[in-house]
Amino acid sequence: MTNSKKILSMIPTENEIKQKFVSLSAKYGYSIDFSENDKISSESLIPYEIILGSPSPSLLSEAKNLKYLHLAQAGSNAYVAEGVLPKDTLLTNSTGAFGHAISEHMLGMLFELYKKLHLYRDNQNLCSWKDEGRVKSVKGSRCLVVGLGDIGSCFARSASALGIKVCGMRRTTTAQKPEYVENMYPFSSLNDIIGEFDIVALSLPETPETIKIINEKNIALMKDGSIILNVGRGSAIDTDALYNALMSGKLGGAGIDVTDPEPLPPDHPLWKCKNAVITPHISGYFHLKETYDNIVNLAYDNLKAYLEGNTPANIVDFKTGYRKA
Amino acid sequence: MTNSKKILSMIPTENEIKQKFVSLSAKYGYSIDFSENDKISSESLIPYEIILGSPSPSLLSEAKNLKYLHLAQAGSNAYVAEGVLPKDTLLTNSTGAFGHAISEHMLGMLFELYKKLHLYRDNQNLCSWKDEGRVKSVKGSRCLVVGLGDIGSCFARSASALGIKVCGMRRTTTAQKPEYVENMYPFSSLNDIIGEFDIVALSLPETPETIKIINEKNIALMKDGSIILNVGRGSAIDTDALYNALMSGKLGGAGIDVTDPEPLPPDHPLWKCKNAVITPHISGYFHLKETYDNIVNLAYDNLKAYLEGNTPANIVDFKTGYRKA
Repeated sequence: MTNSKKILSMIPTENEIKQKFVSLSAKYGYSIDFSENDKISSESLIPYEIILGSPSPSLLSEAKNLKYLHLAQAGSNAYVAEGVLPKDTLLTNSTGAFGHAISEHMLGMLFELYKKLHLYRDNQNLCSWKDEGRVKSVKGSRCLVVGLGDIGSCFARSASALGIKVCGMRRTTTAQKPEYVENMYPFSSLNDIIGEFDIVALSLPETPETIKIINEKNIALMKDGSIILNVGRGSAIDTDALYNALMSGKLGGAGIDVTDPEPLPPDHPLWKCKNAVITPHISGYFHLKETYDNIVNLAYDNLKAYLEGNTPANIVDFKTGYRKA
Repeated sequence: MTNSKKILSMIPTENEIKQKFVSLSAKYGYSIDFSENDKISSESLIPYEIILGSPSPSLLSEAKNLKYLHLAQAGSNAYVAEGVLPKDTLLTNSTGAFGHAISEHMLGMLFELYKKLHLYRDNQNLCSWKDEGRVKSVKGSRCLVVGLGDIGSCFARSASALGIKVCGMRRTTTAQKPEYVENMYPFSSLNDIIGEFDIVALSLPETPETIKIINEKNIALMKDGSIILNVGRGSAIDTDALYNALMSGKLGGAGIDVTDPEPLPPDHPLWKCKNAVITPHISGYFHLKETYDNIVNLAYDNLKAYLEGNTPANIVDFKTGYRKA
């Protein structure tokens, strides 16, 4: 074992799991350190050939020994920008680990808005037994899922099982249409079809083509009283346009786990918007035990593949920021 | 047409629908009046042979000409009590019209509790970007549906489609087990099996055997951190026992659309219980357009059957308060 063969894991793990990683590393002549995000500095990253976790991109420019970074998250756009990672670094991510958790959170926000549970919670806090009138039917509603990757697909499958009529939208529509989706469209059709849906659900990474994909222009084309859900990245929606459409009643509601800016500052007017349902980017991460298990298992399998000289899963394409097809 | 052949409809209806009822009535020599609940007095009900709607039971004792009452609701227990209705009155109800609406509301409360959306709503009202930690997975959880009638069956079917492992409980288990339910149990097994479930969902009418079916004794047997959902009637749960179990943390949450007492008085401590999610008995009624349509169609079909001398649907058994099997 030489000093140069060093691994850093920033994924919070229990001792038993740490031991598995130590054994695997030792087998290939590596030592492994465990550290939490808030203890990391730019210099402290220098010795490592392999990093598992999600170090702040700004800390990586001096990581001159880095050959392999496995992200404990799906969003990779901040890491593929020019100069963030040393040249020829292998980058993999945890796409696929979050579909279950985030899609259930999306369903939760959808039901909350459709059944006015956010308004009833406000009333409860006033000890008020007050009828808020008509609600909407989830069954039979029409939903466009923009971004039919792991998360969007999980959501679409569940939504379809509840009787929602689901259409999907991707960058390209070459992939086969899953049976739980009625139609597939490319991003370029968005403004042509957005008016047909009761629910527009965004599960998108941040790329040049997804920034403000929902904006003043196409919100105006949406069905009156329709709702927007957003997970992924806050930049997918023009926040001012969203705020105005919620306040005017053009949109019936928005369920957003991501915001722009993020975190949403305490004095931002969106907080006080009655029909916005805001959660603080918590739908993924490790908030579901099952997600955490997925993340740890994938990190282990990918580390093993790398050490064995095999190809890890979920290699990120630096041109697109997406997992290579 | 004689003066004695009179029908009263208390179901709120648009003019176009009223006209359908007028035509049907006239065809059989009846006249029909339309009235809203709050304009009804005990005397004003005397002339009617047929009433469609849900008049207060206390007003019916003098309705001496009443031969047929069709309720615009499912719960019939208040009408089968001795002396409420004239002897030999035919009673039908709207069982079957509410499953869609109420089961979706149940799913909404379940997701709200499992994803902590009630706590995030509270934080939103404080403009606070605060992480509330671990959430629970809907998929893979175990749910006992107590009362597998129209509402419970709709809920069980949707829950199963979302990956919840569902068991059902009925008065009797002679009916065939639906394919979306793993096992069926009789009410008498409740205390033996209640500890196996993450979610106990009550969709019960009020009968002697359902009053306080959930009580201090069997809450103590429930899984730590499990949740209760209640639609139907508030009396199914001992409110003090529920309150204590929520405050102690024994139960992880409760989603209740019905309460005991109901309405919940403004100074009742349950309002302030963080992990209680309270809605004011709104999951059914006419809050969903589809439910309203079901109610009106059933009232029309049942009136037609009665006038034609046929048997209307959903005849209530005065011995049980349930629809006759």
